[in-house]
Amino acid sequence: MLLKFQFLHFSTAFSPKFHKISAPVIRITKFRSQMGSSSYTTSSASSSKLLFRQLFEKDSSTYTYLLADASHPDKPALLVDPVDKTVDRDLSLVKELGLKLLYAINTHVHADHVTGTGLIKSKAPGVKSIISKASNAKADLFVEPGDKICFGDLFLEVRSTPGHTLGCVTYVTGDGHNQPQPRIAFTGDALLIRGCGRTDFQGGSSEQLYKSVHSQIFTLPKDTFVYPAHDYKGFSVSTVGEEMLYNPRLTKDKEAFKNIMANLNLSYPKMIDVAVPANMFCGLQDVESKAS
Amino acid sequence: MLLKFQFLHFSTAFSPKFHKISAPVIRITKFRSQMGSSSYTTSSASSSKLLFRQLFEKDSSTYTYLLADASHPDKPALLVDPVDKTVDRDLSLVKELGLKLLYAINTHVHADHVTGTGLIKSKAPGVKSIISKASNAKADLFVEPGDKICFGDLFLEVRSTPGHTLGCVTYVTGDGHNQPQPRIAFTGDALLIRGCGRTDFQGGSSEQLYKSVHSQIFTLPKDTFVYPAHDYKGFSVSTVGEEMLYNPRLTKDKEAFKNIMANLNLSYPKMIDVAVPANMFCGLQDVESKAS
Repeated sequence: MLLKFQFLHFSTAFSPKFHKISAPVIRITKFRSQMGSSSYTTSSASSSKLLFRQLFEKDSSTYTYLLADASHPDKPALLVDPVDKTVDRDLSLVKELGLKLLYAINTHVHADHVTGTGLIKSKAPGVKSIISKASNAKADLFVEPGDKICFGDLFLEVRSTPGHTLGCVTYVTGDGHNQPQPRIAFTGDALLIRGCGRTDFQGGSSEQLYKSVHSQIFTLPKDTFVYPAHDYKGFSVSTVGEEMLYNPRLTKDKEAFKNIMANLNLSYPKMIDVAVPANMFCGLQDVESKAS
Repeated sequence: MLLKFQFLHFSTAFSPKFHKISAPVIRITKFRSQMGSSSYTTSSASSSKLLFRQLFEKDSSTYTYLLADASHPDKPALLVDPVDKTVDRDLSLVKELGLKLLYAINTHVHADHVTGTGLIKSKAPGVKSIISKASNAKADLFVEPGDKICFGDLFLEVRSTPGHTLGCVTYVTGDGHNQPQPRIAFTGDALLIRGCGRTDFQGGSSEQLYKSVHSQIFTLPKDTFVYPAHDYKGFSVSTVGEEMLYNPRLTKDKEAFKNIMANLNLSYPKMIDVAVPANMFCGLQDVESKAS
């Protein structure tokens, strides 16, 4: 039972006295090399601090996440899974908190709402959109498994978790010295709290989803927080350990899981014909010229 | 700008080797005396850990909070502002997390939803309901300003914040050694994120609410998290510092605030005639015999 809590304060040994300007998206190996070459010692008092906000869009029950390195002078920030309808709310909060928004990131091409990334780019020039290369969608930057998305001294690691769609990824906070403890996984629709995303559209595959969750999420430390893209019952967070024990689908064996997913009898997603074409281009309907 | 973050991990010096059985509700002075008489030193490795969950009820946009001392062998827990409709969800989570629910607590007599405290007591015998003495409602235990509600080695302090109703209180995590840092304030409807509760029913008073927020909430450390009873825009949390800067009502002077509150032109609360009578008796409609 590794469900110990919800809050974390991390304050650690690795404490640079200057703040490097990170490449927007860099490989895990490159980042590790940078970390390793640091000569800073544990005696310095500086530490990194995650500012974190969970935001909700009621119509589609979508969670958007705002993360920033509050210890960095620029307070560099990113938004995970912003929704078009709540872009003004999110940008207003970014401004009030004095953050510098670097990235607007999607876990996948959503079928149930229109992403806010395109609108954010139009309202906040300089912000870059990010999505997985495997999604085949347009964006400013594409990530692949093992990539790291840096904001200040913090970063998100990219894990490939297809199955709900073929391009789904899970973003996980780092495991380095000055990264949040416990770790935090933004699982999109791959793993929901006591559930998971459907697998019958957009290249979905229940077999692949089962493998993704078990190999990429359930292998994380059990106290890792699970923050999904949606919740329909009013839950805000879970942990890897909790889902390994209580997820009614993913605790089953693979064949039972596939059987469950094949018999959900869900209705056709009401937003899919609008949302998916738009979301292939950062949520902007009138395509390529505006999108990337 | 004291908005540094959302998560906290506290792990501190005060580290008892046994777990005292606390009186359910005890006075601040008494508690402090107990703390002072402890001879435990900083060398012990044990620490208190808050398990915290924010839960949402969509119809009334109500937040319920689950708190537990995860370091205590019993994992003693409490629920703040449970809703009748989501009692089964909340009790299921309590069970899955292996918690021992001690208290079901209200910040005030709600007018927009029926409290879950009575239902919880019927489904989980032994749980005690708590509300402020000033509310004049029925409950198992009544709290007054300065009281502390203990769960394991953690506690909530009671602050009187009338104005939305005459009996409103704010529960604030402690400022002791092994209590959460930053502190967390459960403000009910006294202070909402960028807003506040209406003051035109249930003994409400805009003058009193202004005084309550300024004297009891805005005097807390600026990094104190503000977790309200409701949010209608998808925000989950704020801080005292943020509301002192950006609350569109409570940053005004008192006369301007009173003028705003007198001219909200809100419709009659649709649930009030059902909810308030029920909530005077732990949410149970058929009164006193079941209620306290």
